[in-house]
This record gives sequence, structure tokens and C-alpha cells, in this order.
Amino acid sequence: MKTLLKVDIKAKPETQDVLHNRWHPDIPMVAWVKPGDEFRVECVDWTGGQIKNDDNAMDIKVVDLSKVHYLTGPIGVVGAEPGDLLKVDILDVGVLPDFDWGFTGLFAKENGGGFLTEHYPEARKACWNFSGIYANSRHIPGVEFAGIMHPGLIGCLPDAKLLKEWNTREKALFDTDPGRVPPLAALPYPATAHMGRMDPAKAKAAAMEGARTVPPREHGGNCDIKNLTKGSCIYFPVYQKGGGLSMGDIHFSQGDGEITFCGAIEMAGYLELRVEVIKNGVAMYGIKNPIFKTSTLSPSYTNFLMFEGISVDEAGKQHYLDVHVAYRMACLNAIEYLKKFGYSGAQAYGILGTAPVEGRISGIVDIPNACATSAIPTEIFKFDLMPTNAGPKPGIAPGSDLARVL
Amino acid sequence: MKTLLKVDIKAKPETQDVLHNRWHPDIPMVAWVKPGDEFRVECVDWTGGQIKNDDNAMDIKVVDLSKVHYLTGPIGVVGAEPGDLLKVDILDVGVLPDFDWGFTGLFAKENGGGFLTEHYPEARKACWNFSGIYANSRHIPGVEFAGIMHPGLIGCLPDAKLLKEWNTREKALFDTDPGRVPPLAALPYPATAHMGRMDPAKAKAAAMEGARTVPPREHGGNCDIKNLTKGSCIYFPVYQKGGGLSMGDIHFSQGDGEITFCGAIEMAGYLELRVEVIKNGVAMYGIKNPIFKTSTLSPSYTNFLMFEGISVDEAGKQHYLDVHVAYRMACLNAIEYLKKFGYSGAQAYGILGTAPVEGRISGIVDIPNACATSAIPTEIFKFDLMPTNAGPKPGIAPGSDLARVL
Amino acid sequence: MKTLLKVDIKAKPETQDVLHNRWHPDIPMVAWVKPGDEFRVECVDWTGGQIKNDDNAMDIKVVDLSKVHYLTGPIGVVGAEPGDLLKVDILDVGVLPDFDWGFTGLFAKENGGGFLTEHYPEARKACWNFSGIYANSRHIPGVEFAGIMHPGLIGCLPDAKLLKEWNTREKALFDTDPGRVPPLAALPYPATAHMGRMDPAKAKAAAMEGARTVPPREHGGNCDIKNLTKGSCIYFPVYQKGGGLSMGDIHFSQGDGEITFCGAIEMAGYLELRVEVIKNGVAMYGIKNPIFKTSTLSPSYTNFLMFEGISVDEAGKQHYLDVHVAYRMACLNAIEYLKKFGYSGAQAYGILGTAPVEGRISGIVDIPNACATSAIPTEIFKFDLMPTNAGPKPGIAPGSDLARVL
Amino acid sequence: MKTLLKVDIKAKPETQDVLHNRWHPDIPMVAWVKPGDEFRVECVDWTGGQIKNDDNAMDIKVVDLSKVHYLTGPIGVVGAEPGDLLKVDILDVGVLPDFDWGFTGLFAKENGGGFLTEHYPEARKACWNFSGIYANSRHIPGVEFAGIMHPGLIGCLPDAKLLKEWNTREKALFDTDPGRVPPLAALPYPATAHMGRMDPAKAKAAAMEGARTVPPREHGGNCDIKNLTKGSCIYFPVYQKGGGLSMGDIHFSQGDGEITFCGAIEMAGYLELRVEVIKNGVAMYGIKNPIFKTSTLSPSYTNFLMFEGISVDEAGKQHYLDVHVAYRMACLNAIEYLKKFGYSGAQAYGILGTAPVEGRISGIVDIPNACATSAIPTEIFKFDLMPTNAGPKPGIAPGSDLARVL
Repeated sequence: MKTLLKVDIKAKPETQDVLHNRWHPDIPMVAWVKPGDEFRVECVDWTGGQIKNDDNAMDIKVVDLSKVHYLTGPIGVVGAEPGDLLKVDILDVGVLPDFDWGFTGLFAKENGGGFLTEHYPEARKACWNFSGIYANSRHIPGVEFAGIMHPGLIGCLPDAKLLKEWNTREKALFDTDPGRVPPLAALPYPATAHMGRMDPAKAKAAAMEGARTVPPREHGGNCDIKNLTKGSCIYFPVYQKGGGLSMGDIHFSQGDGEITFCGAIEMAGYLELRVEVIKNGVAMYGIKNPIFKTSTLSPSYTNFLMFEGISVDEAGKQHYLDVHVAYRMACLNAIEYLKKFGYSGAQAYGILGTAPVEGRISGIVDIPNACATSAIPTEIFKFDLMPTNAGPKPGIAPGSDLARVL
Repeated sequence: MKTLLKVDIKAKPETQDVLHNRWHPDIPMVAWVKPGDEFRVECVDWTGGQIKNDDNAMDIKVVDLSKVHYLTGPIGVVGAEPGDLLKVDILDVGVLPDFDWGFTGLFAKENGGGFLTEHYPEARKACWNFSGIYANSRHIPGVEFAGIMHPGLIGCLPDAKLLKEWNTREKALFDTDPGRVPPLAALPYPATAHMGRMDPAKAKAAAMEGARTVPPREHGGNCDIKNLTKGSCIYFPVYQKGGGLSMGDIHFSQGDGEITFCGAIEMAGYLELRVEVIKNGVAMYGIKNPIFKTSTLSPSYTNFLMFEGISVDEAGKQHYLDVHVAYRMACLNAIEYLKKFGYSGAQAYGILGTAPVEGRISGIVDIPNACATSAIPTEIFKFDLMPTNAGPKPGIAPGSDLARVL
Repeated sequence: MKTLLKVDIKAKPETQDVLHNRWHPDIPMVAWVKPGDEFRVECVDWTGGQIKNDDNAMDIKVVDLSKVHYLTGPIGVVGAEPGDLLKVDILDVGVLPDFDWGFTGLFAKENGGGFLTEHYPEARKACWNFSGIYANSRHIPGVEFAGIMHPGLIGCLPDAKLLKEWNTREKALFDTDPGRVPPLAALPYPATAHMGRMDPAKAKAAAMEGARTVPPREHGGNCDIKNLTKGSCIYFPVYQKGGGLSMGDIHFSQGDGEITFCGAIEMAGYLELRVEVIKNGVAMYGIKNPIFKTSTLSPSYTNFLMFEGISVDEAGKQHYLDVHVAYRMACLNAIEYLKKFGYSGAQAYGILGTAPVEGRISGIVDIPNACATSAIPTEIFKFDLMPTNAGPKPGIAPGSDLARVL
Repeated sequence: MKTLLKVDIKAKPETQDVLHNRWHPDIPMVAWVKPGDEFRVECVDWTGGQIKNDDNAMDIKVVDLSKVHYLTGPIGVVGAEPGDLLKVDILDVGVLPDFDWGFTGLFAKENGGGFLTEHYPEARKACWNFSGIYANSRHIPGVEFAGIMHPGLIGCLPDAKLLKEWNTREKALFDTDPGRVPPLAALPYPATAHMGRMDPAKAKAAAMEGARTVPPREHGGNCDIKNLTKGSCIYFPVYQKGGGLSMGDIHFSQGDGEITFCGAIEMAGYLELRVEVIKNGVAMYGIKNPIFKTSTLSPSYTNFLMFEGISVDEAGKQHYLDVHVAYRMACLNAIEYLKKFGYSGAQAYGILGTAPVEGRISGIVDIPNACATSAIPTEIFKFDLMPTNAGPKPGIAPGSDLARVL
């Protein structure tokens, strides 16, 4: 398949004009394709090369999160117009020959944080080796799983109206607690904006309002949905002529929720895509956010050990149907369990963030408790994870752990 | 398999002493079994027969929710002691010969409500016919799916300390907005308490503190987890001698979240169980809430259409990583889509509550938006649910809808 | 669901006129249904009660195979005519309350035989206990699996022309070696024929030509296809007015090939069916044998250990693309492997015949060797079946085995 | 992952000494690895480049089948000795950048033939385009499926004794009908033998007895098992020091049986492997042929339309439990069905040979008829393949077909 857009993973991302790291309607297309075309797009890792394959988490601690995510694009599709649906077959997702490893970070609480940052506030790192379709890690032994490779981030450029809406509502939230660490929202930040091929003068202005790529939004964006894997087919709302499809943040694998924030197995890589246009699809199908059809090629793990969590928090406080709390408790329950087999808490946290873990909203109406579940495939462990009368036996040798800041 | 406990679905539930509708440490065991035993337990539907198989939603509107859920039990297991894990194989779940239908209700906002009660405040009802392993409904045509039968509610009796903890924390929440409709929590309510075989004098006192069965809690209880289906195996914490396992609220099928509250396909039925005891399992495995192993016999639907939702609410307000909002938006997106094929909003809501829909916490760290997904198996529809260039074609004939209050 | 046809599993099958054990165009319908109808049909076990739940294989040794299979029916479908397709949804398959066990026999070489009768010529028996959706056996410990319940035998009555064709071609084969044990074909045998509600005088004549129910044929019949399980949908050619659907030989579970002949887990039970007619479907779709759509509810075992076999027989003789030989060798290879974990050969043979084993025609063109595979789900064993450096550890305690003739 | 062995797909295979096309104990190792090593091995297509991506089947007609299969290897594993098991994780299978297409041939009856060569005696060809994980063909429109990539051929070198056994038994079969077309066996043929790095003088002698690579044998070899896909793990018997693992004949996809002979989607490509040694594993586990564990990453198609076939041949002749005949009839039944949707017979034959079709030995004991089934995943078609009252509608536009000899 022909490569439409190439990246240089050894060069600085800000020097590559096929990349950008903000959402803005005026970022120029870097390539055009026609409906029916199939093509390959290369992507740098989401940090643009800030993280190294080593045993020191200092890079995680000092990562410049104002720079992420570096996306490849935007790509114009001939004939796509506002109100259309852009149908994108994700034909393949793969590893680049020179980047055959991945990383998972626990961000420091003061620089990024994560789902369980109150419990794991320190910067930590796990590096992953790719053995064909499998991932394994010297930092988290005893486990090996087939990746469910997917783009964490993909979507079309917003139009000006939508961009304004994003900025307005996120600013309003931010302003409710401006000093919070981590912050309530990631607001525009011109200093490190990379506006692609935009004319420098225009880019400077646009950077003032260019939306950060951190959250998922109406156009899709940073959804971090593991099921959007190779072989799936997604339908994006189009907001401007040509659509302007950009993508990046490729994950080798991820557990539902991407709970460690830098929690998937992050990598550079490529996507192979096929595009079509459904004219007037947004209105015809009542679409607000993207919808997608799942693939037939995700790993077929079928034996799951499921952990329940309810919306009573660590301190015993009752919350009202709060799935965020319930899922946090399910994850903490799972971590406690995994620790009985020899894992550190950080290792267990890392497994939940990276392995093909199902995070489900199981019950959400039984006042006052939401019930969320975290389902871990037992087949990925090299030891027996089920409870027995004999009690848990250590599944891994002592001594390993996630890398710390050295 | 021998039937350990029988119910009479035609008799009043409050007259049957194998039933109870509150959690309390002192409810006497109604039967004892030994580790290794296999036995059948019959259950009434969760309302104890308040809902009829007809086309009038009046019974939904006036349902007495202070009476639910009627549970069968408690069952003592010889040798089970506090701190043990009670391993329960759910060998089968089935329909009773005289109750071969089910119901789904949208509760009125002023009496129960539900996940989307602001959008669907009216009492409505769908009745389901069971065609072997499949369910179909005259109120929701065009769809037929294999059930993933499961007990919505199962768990062991709490001890006095745990009961006190429940009542304390739920009361504290309730007191933050005591007049709220629906209420923030379901507090003890002696008037309709059924304390099983408890001595009447004692029962009167116990009913003052008997915990309502509505929410899931540390012991499991009303988790409404569809994956706890026939063939799964669950491990419950034991809080008192014998455990005291009670169960009910059997569902023929349910979508993740049971979003319509009375949202599963509710039925009377039976469970077949096999019990074992893992001595000291709670401490050995670090268990707080129950854990369970999934079954190999849930329906293997593989083609899903997935809807995304983010934590920006219907009014455009930005919430911080709020999965409850994100899932509500995903569900509303799915409903809008289904309406394009001829369904009413209530019908679409009913499908999401009952079909084997996967509700996932997809991304939960990308500030400020949580991303939740609702995945609908397309194979359950008798028409093509995928988007095409031709636009949606009506999948059902006009005229059908959920029953209203007559 | 209403029961259309009941059987009495304690009465002699030859006294029940809803049963018959031969195929003949003139067997009268015992019930009529309309397109769209859903109904339940009860069936005796295929031998009509000759086998007991005990530890003596004498009943297997002396079983009267001229009597099998006792089928329930035929059922007429209003409007079905020759050339139509009868669409039958197998809505459910289940156990009868008074027959909650099953059996597997190795027939004696001189009375029935089986796929490996040269290796296992002796009559043996295993009895199975049904624990909800699971089967387990005191005669074959260490293994428990979810059943894939199905009718081994189902199809419509032939017309006179087709019946004649069957009898002619099978007699021609039989005549090539009339004294063979076991015989090459099961020819008409009037002595034990049960012609249902046919007038006795007519029945006597018809029994002379009534086709035995042993082999699968154009109409379906005794296909013993495990995948025709609850939830599947099958399309039968119709040869006469009303179709005349008969069924029986219900299996709780079976491995591909049903290699022990009486190799499935045989049981009495019931089927729940829904029928439709596709007018002129045989010609429209070019149908010769039945076709069917698989269910979404068969057990989802995904971890298989696969054994290869090639068409070089036990004596080292080379056969030409002979899948029969190749599959026999694959099965023998699997048996040798299972024996290393403590099973007797007969037990291993029994597992291959009953568990959800996949038997595949893997390669059939690489002269001179066909390659067949037998895939055993490893999850059904209570011990680890995979090869390790440490070598096989006994998976079961010594002492158990299939019942012998006492 | 490091590439251990590279091939040049543009060079003549007979000039590349990392290739060989016969089995012989004395072929020298071309590389050595250690237990635990992971490495990539490139392979040419099985014909060594004889087939072109065009619309003329002349290359299929005149293919030199005495040259196939070109294998890469043998690879020695340090420490492997006769009687050990060589455990090989197939970590990945992939496409080479310069060979991103595949082919399927129907061999002419007089040069190769195939499973249905009596029905399709003419040389024909289909070329396939790889769209990421999917394959589609200009010669067979209307269908697109996820590949289940696998090596058709992999195994260790035989020792002298085993080689002799092969040659003896195959010659014995061949001699029963030496003039048969196609022949009963592919005997040694020195003229086109490529003995790898063997010394030329020795090679000349060895070529006289070097076994052809066509059939599967005790060591595995040309098994053409689609389930041996990326992510599976296979255990090979070792016959000589180092094992000597060779491989090739990579398929992008294949239906069970590889019925068109050149029936898979044939391609050049690479394998990524990880090797371990289980000392004395052959005796410990009673291994004769290789065994393997299936992958969790094969396509999860779940909706199959199944076609039955019985061992009564096209002429109506009755065969005795002949699975070869039964599977041929099942395939012919499927072809007739597919023709009703607009496919030519050759196209339908091509689909059965290439798509992830399950070919099962369903019943093999019901004298005199074996029952085999061919299960086609309906989800791979762009149109509805199920029977309806309206009858079949053309699924493809007229005009396409497999390439013929021009």
C-alpha cells in the first residue's frame, strides 16, 4: 500500500510540517485523497519522541505535556463537505521498523497525573517489547498479551463555531478551580503550538485559540477507545470542505479507560486507511459523535476475572451513581488482588492500563451505587490467576518493578 | 437437579417465608447445604408479581418500590465462616414453566425514575415473549436476541457492623437533599419489610434497620451485571456463620447499566448453583467486593455498532471526567440513531436497556472529558442497521410502541 | 411455550404412536402446525430407554440397534409442498425433568462398532451428570464442559422416489461385502419397525422398505452435527405435502465426528421450534442437502490444543487423500497424549466423542496425504493440558474408567 | 525484530542458498539460534515467483510443480536433539513490502489438479489485493475478509530412517497406478531439486532420495492448516541435532482443505518466531505428529452458513463413510448455492478455497454415510447471503470471473 504521509521519528516533531498538535479549522491540508483510496499514514508517538526505552522514569517526570499530541495530517478527502459523514476503514495498524517497542507511564501527580494519581503520585515507566503480535515487558514480567492496536486519537478538523464552543465550555470549567493540580482542563497554550503548514503569522494568532488535543470531543479526537482497532470502520462528522482527517497516539494495546493516562502501550507506527463519503450523513443518521463498527480481529480472550466496584470511595464516602468512583474502586480491587501474586501496586496498575481489560458500566440505576466492573483476561498470565483453596502462589520472581526516577 | 427452595408465583410474596426483601444479619436461614452440593432455587420476579403481561403501564406507574426486591433465601453453607470466600458456580438460570414472559419498565420520574428519566419521565412498559433462547416483544418489534440470563441480585447476609456502615453512609448522602425526587438513596422502610422467617417481634425491630436491597454493596447484592450469567463462577465474602446466600431479580437479558432501571427483561425463574468454601479467602486474596469468572456461554455477538459519548451534557455544559454523563450522552446518541429507523425514543431506550449492549468506560483520563461507549450488536436486528449512502430505511412498521398508562 | 408432542420416557417406545423409527413417505402426520408457530416437542433417547444410568455396560453390549432411532413426529406444516424449503428455528434444546443424565457408549465391535472399533472392540459405557449447562462424569473425571445441545437427527419425510433411491444405493454397497461385521449399511428390517400411526396392515408392507434412520441423507436425518445447536436455523427440502418433520437423538454435547458412534452424550429431551415455509426454495437456492445458520450461543471455548493426523494408517500404509484415515490418526494421536495425563484409552476416546472437539479437514489436496485435525478445548480440563519442560503430571486420580460388561 | 534470513523475491529461488525444495537429513543449517531467541524469517511464495499478478492463467497452466515448495532454512536450534520437542511460537506472519498481493490458482487437471478437478479441469487464476488485514480480488468481487495468515509448510528435517519410510510407502502407493493423472504421489525428482547449501556432489546424490515437499508428514511439513496462524504455538518432533526448522508456503488466508490445491491466497512474506526446546518431549507426551495451541487472534466470524455433504457421490453412488466424498459434496452444494447469487462456479470454488471457511468432519460413524460440513462466514459478503422468501438477488455485477489461459 502506498505511503501517503511519512514521518521521521528521529527528527524533532516541531520541524515536520506533516504534523500538528492543536485543533484549528485553518490548518492546511497536507495531502488530498479521493473516496475509495487506500493509503498508509505514519505517526510519531504521542509525545513526539520525548520518552526513551530505558530504566529511568525521569523523562516521564519532566515530559512536556503542552506539546502533545503530535498528529499526522490533516488529510483532505475530495468531495467531503460539512454535514457529510467520512467513512474510514482502519485497514491496518502497525509498528514502524525502527520503533519496535512501546512505553507506559504513570505521570507524576504534579505533571499529568492519572486515574489513580492519589495512590500512585510518582512518575514511573514500563517499557514494552513487541514479540510479533504480543507485548511483554521487563518491567512487568509474567504477562504477555496480543495487542489490540488502535489509534488513540483520530478525527476531522472542527469548524470555527465548534472550536469556539470547545474553548468556551472548557474555560468555564477550568475557571471553577484555576489552581487545581492536575488542572480541570487543558486550555490553549500558544508557546508550544505546532500549527502544521499554517503560514507563520496566521499560525501565531491561531495558536491562541487552537484547541488542545487532550480530550475527546464531538469530532472524536482523543477517544482512546481500544475497540477502534485494525479492521474496524468509523464514521466521522465532517465540519469543513475536505474534512481534514488527522491522527496519531497509536497504541499497541490498552485497557478500557487508559487509566494510567500515559496508560496504553504508546508507540510510533502507521495506519492504513480507506475513505468514503456519505453525503449528508450527519442529518440522515442523527450523528453527533462518531460511530464505528467493531473489527473481527481483536484478540478473542474469553476467560475473564471480573472485579466489581461501587460508588463508595476509599474513605467510605457514599457518592450518587458515580461511575468514575465505581470504576476506580473496581480497579483498586483488582490491584489488591494482583498484588497477592507478587506484583507491586504500580505493576498491577500498569497491567490494568495496558492489557485488553474490559471496563464496563454494569449497573447505573440502583441508587445510590453505580456498579462498574474491570474484567481481566486470565489467559494473558503465565500463572494461574484464579482463587483456589491453596491460596495465591507467587506468579513472578521478586525484584522487578516499573522504572523510577533516577 | 433437586429443588432446594420453591416459590409460588401466584401467591403474595409477603406470605412466603422463603422470601425476604431486606438485608439483615438476623434473617434466619431457610435451608442448609454442604460444600459440593448442587441445587435449584426458584425466585419470584423482583417486584413479587406486581407487573402484568398486558398493554397498560399503570402497574409500572403505581408499583410499590418499597417492597422490592423479593429474594429467595438465605441459604446456609455448612462450614462457611466470616472471612471465607463462598464460591458459587451459577450452573444454570432458567424460566419457570408458568412464567414464560418478561417485562421492562420505564419508571415514572416521580416513582423510581431511571437513567434517562429527564428525557423519558412517563411510566411505560414493554412485555417480552421468550422463544426458547430468544426474546422478542410486541412492543419493540424488529429485534430478537439471545438472552444472557443472570441473577440481578445475589449475595450473602451482612454482619451487624457492615449493615451499620451501609445505613450510616447512605443516610449521610440522603440528608444532603432529602426532598429530591427520585431520592438520593433508599433508606430503611419498615412498613413493607419482609424479614423472612424472623420471629415477628424481632422482625419489627430489625425492619427499622434492615437495608434496602436496591444498591449493590460490598457483599455484591443488586449488581445487575449481565456477565454474571449461567456458567459463570462467583466468589462472595462471607460475613457470618453459614454465609446466608440470597438471590433474586432474575433477568432474561440486560444491556450494560440496566439503564431503564426496571430495564432488564425481568422475570421469575430459577437458578442452579454449586457451592464451595475457600477458607480465609478474603484475606488471602485481598477481596473487598465479589469477583467472578465469566462464562463461556454468553451470546457471541461480534458485530457491534458503537456510539461514543463525552462528558459534555445535553445543555453543552462541561463536566470533569464524569462517566455518568458520558454514558448518558452515548446512550442518547444511540437513541437518536435508532429513531432514524422508525423506533420511538422509548423503544430505542428499551433496546439499550435489554439487549446485550456493551457499555464501556473507554477513556477516563483525558481531561476534562471522559469517553464512554455503548456498543449495540447489529445482528439482533431484522434489518440492516449500518449507515449507507442511501440513508436509513424504516426497519419496522409504524404503529407499535411501549405500552402507556391507560 | 406449548408442548405439541409429549413422550413417556418410562413407557415402551413401540407403544407410543407419536414415535416412529423408520423413514417412509406414508407415515401419517401426528400433528399439524402453521407457519410462524412456535412449539415444543419431546423426544425419548435414541435407543428408546435401553440404556441405564449404572456401572454395567451389558446394556451397551446387547443393545438392539435394529430399533433405533425413535423419532418424534412427523409434524405437518400447513402450506409446505414439495420443492419448498422448510425453515426451522431451533429455539431451544433442553433436558426433561425426569431424565437429567446422559450416556456415552463404546459399542462392541460385533454390535455396532465405532470409529476406533479395531482399537476399542469391547462394549463400554460412561454416564454423565448434568450440572446445569455443564456435563461431568464419574466414569471420566477431571473434565467438565458446557454442552452444545442439539438434535442428532432431524428431517422431513422422503417421497417414494427418494426412498427408493436410498434403498437401491445402500443395498448395492451392502452387497459388495454382505457378511462384514459391522455391516456396510443398515438395510430395511421389518421385525422391529415402528411405523407411527400407520394402519397396521399398511405398516407391515411399508416396513419392508422403510429406510433405517442410521445414516444422514439428502433430507438431513441423522447428521449428528454438533453445530446444529439451540439458536441455529435450518432449511430442509420438502418432499411431500406438509413436509413431515421428525426428530430425535438429542445430544447434550458431542465432538465432531461423534466418533464413539454412541459417542455423543445421549439423552431424552425436548426441542423448541419455530417453522416457516420458503416457497419453491429448493430450486431458487439450488438446495440438495439442508443448509443451516449457526447459533450465537454455542460455548465460546477459544484455547484449543490441536492434533494432526495424516492418511498413513496405524500399520504405516500410505492411503490416497483419505480423510477418514487422517482423522482416525489425529484422534489416536490425541488419545496417546491424553493417556499421559492418567486417562485410560477408553476415557480419552470418550472425551473426543463427547466434548466440544473440533474435527477439521485441514488439507485435502497435498498428495498423497490428507491432513485432518482434532482440536480439544483445554479449558474443559481441571488440570493444565499443555506441554511443559516438566512433563505431564497426572490430572486425575487412579482408579476410574468407563464401565465394563459385568 | 532482527531478520535472521532474508530472501530476494526478484531473484531466481534456485540461486538463493537459504532456500531448498526437498526434505533431506543432510541439508546444512543456514543459521543457528538459541532457545528463547526471537527472529524473523523471510520466505518466497511457494512457487518461487512463477505466478504473476495479471489476468492470464497461462502461468498456472504451465507451472513447474517439480520445483515447489521453496522453503527457507533449515535453522538449527542449539541444544535440540532427537526425541526433543521444538516449541515454536509463531509470533507474527506478514506481507513483504514489495509483494503486497496474492494469488489463487485452479491447476489444470493434467498439471496438478485439485479437489474438484473433475468439475473444474481448466487452469484458472484469481489475484488478490491486500487492504491491510483484508483481502479482496478483482476476479472475485463482492467479498472481502480478514486474513488468517499462516505458514502452509513448516517442520524439521527428517532423519535418514524417517526419510526412507516416506519414500518407501509413497512409492508403494504410486506403483498401484503409475500412469494416473494427477499422480497418486509426488516421488523424488532430482532434476529440479534445490538442496540448499549442500555440497554439489553430495547434493546430486541426495536429490535422488530427497523427499518432495508436497504432502504433510510426521514432521508436519505441508499441513496447510489455517489455524496455525499468527499467535499460535506449535510443538515439532526433533529428528536430528539442531532440529533443522524450515518453512514457507505462506498463506494470507485459506479455507479448510485448501481445496483448489493452489487454493489458499499464496504470497511471499515473513514469519516471526520464538523457539524453545522441551527435552525428551516426544516420549514424555507420546507425540507422533506435531501438536499446536491455537491463537487468540484469528478472525472472529461467528455467523456461518453451513452446507452438508454425505458420502454419496455426484453419480449417486454410495461410498462407505468416505469423508473425502462427503466434503466434496458439501463443497459442491455450497458452490451451487453461491452461483445463485451471480458467481461463476470457478469463483465460488475460489471463495471456498480462500475465505476462512470451516470444513468439519461432522458425523463419521452413521453407516454408510459420513457427513461433512462446509461453513461459510456470511459476514464476508457485501450482500445478504441468507435464504429469504424473495429468493436470491444478484450480489455482484455480471462480467467478472477468474482469469483464463489467454
